[in-house]
Amino acid sequence: MTQPFASTLSRRQLLQSTALGGAISALGAASALAAPNEPVELDEGGVVLIQGDSITDAGRNRSRQGQPNDAAALGRGYAAMIAARLLGDLPYQNLKVYNRGISGNKVPDLKARWEQDAVTLKPAVLSILIGVNDIWHKLGGRYDGTVEDYERGFAELLAETREKLPATTLVVCEPFVLRCGAVNEEWFPEFDQRRAAARRVAEGAGAIFVPFQKMFDEAVKHAPPNYWAGDGVHPTFPGHALMAATWMKMVI
Amino acid sequence: MTQPFASTLSRRQLLQSTALGGAISALGAASALAAPNEPVELDEGGVVLIQGDSITDAGRNRSRQGQPNDAAALGRGYAAMIAARLLGDLPYQNLKVYNRGISGNKVPDLKARWEQDAVTLKPAVLSILIGVNDIWHKLGGRYDGTVEDYERGFAELLAETREKLPATTLVVCEPFVLRCGAVNEEWFPEFDQRRAAARRVAEGAGAIFVPFQKMFDEAVKHAPPNYWAGDGVHPTFPGHALMAATWMKMVI
Repeated sequence: MTQPFASTLSRRQLLQSTALGGAISALGAASALAAPNEPVELDEGGVVLIQGDSITDAGRNRSRQGQPNDAAALGRGYAAMIAARLLGDLPYQNLKVYNRGISGNKVPDLKARWEQDAVTLKPAVLSILIGVNDIWHKLGGRYDGTVEDYERGFAELLAETREKLPATTLVVCEPFVLRCGAVNEEWFPEFDQRRAAARRVAEGAGAIFVPFQKMFDEAVKHAPPNYWAGDGVHPTFPGHALMAATWMKMVI
Repeated sequence: MTQPFASTLSRRQLLQSTALGGAISALGAASALAAPNEPVELDEGGVVLIQGDSITDAGRNRSRQGQPNDAAALGRGYAAMIAARLLGDLPYQNLKVYNRGISGNKVPDLKARWEQDAVTLKPAVLSILIGVNDIWHKLGGRYDGTVEDYERGFAELLAETREKLPATTLVVCEPFVLRCGAVNEEWFPEFDQRRAAARRVAEGAGAIFVPFQKMFDEAVKHAPPNYWAGDGVHPTFPGHALMAATWMKMVI
């Protein structure tokens, strides 16, 4: 384990100086993840929608999903943690944060529920993490979508979103796995091909890309894979916390 | 509602410049809450313990409380949000965060379980939010502790802690209420006397003081009291989120 703050500067001073300089970072995870975009400006009352599969879902109470900023509706994962950071750091913006991730979802599942679970909410920011089930269910023989199907379907989803929500800031989160638990060599190289597809989709749609795989590749130098995701797919609390911190850095 | 970011600077630039300057702040809530202390340095593997009553408890799963950094064990309130920020911002420090708040607790309840629920965990940082039940149960006729009892008992608790855990950074969170729900004029001026007592206890013990009442007094200028705490005592998700952001600013 490193001791990134063992310096003559206090941590707050170090964070402040690096926040300005930007060239180095006190946060090891962040050093390779300098945000290329202008930070998103969230207007008064803006909606932030977090979409995805079980990683996003994270045990949320779907019967309360109509309520923004509701603890149970937000689940226990990175979506709730992003909501807590947004509402804590921008407390007077009256932001409305929703989690609409559904366990088991693949790209076609998002497409089927996109109108009611994304478009009608008119989000100012729409973040999507999708892809791990598209390969996992295929490896398990329950689905036959190819990498090309994933890329085409995901691109169509974002094109539809751009058309219906032209002012929305899109965020594409990189699918990721940790090499432990359910994740074995069978997943590769196809999983890497799907990650590359997600990046192309993001670029094609002008979306902000949040490189979660790169982030976890750095993280496993500091703690074992199962510290970040016990089964290799679903993050632990520390894994979700790192995702939320990185998302905030890249987007806001 | 104000528009603190309606400027020619982007938010990230504004946050960066104010982080350095410190004289003004883009975060309205933070402007009156400049941290007077040096930020706490958390060593590798350090334990952070959040203690208190139902506001801290926040539905945590007590059967899992032996596990640090566990989503269910941390509950859904400011303790979990602090944990997520700490683990996300300092991901490689191997920090261990515990929530041991118990609903309904008053100062004497903390004293009764302090050895097993605080001392044995050897925290690097120990945060305590206690006091609202000490008056609430008294108003309800279920308790007869005075303001002096609260101050003496709280001071003794911290003195015991200082003796047994001399290296621990103590954090005293100011008890707070919002003027709505269960909180009416009967609470005053005694509640303000108890807040003042908590501040004296913090100063006497050399603890960092987190001024939650001051924070919420500012917050109600921007959104109604029940946006922050429906019953006046237990924060909503946005209320907890603001607490966590302020705690981090004051402590780390």
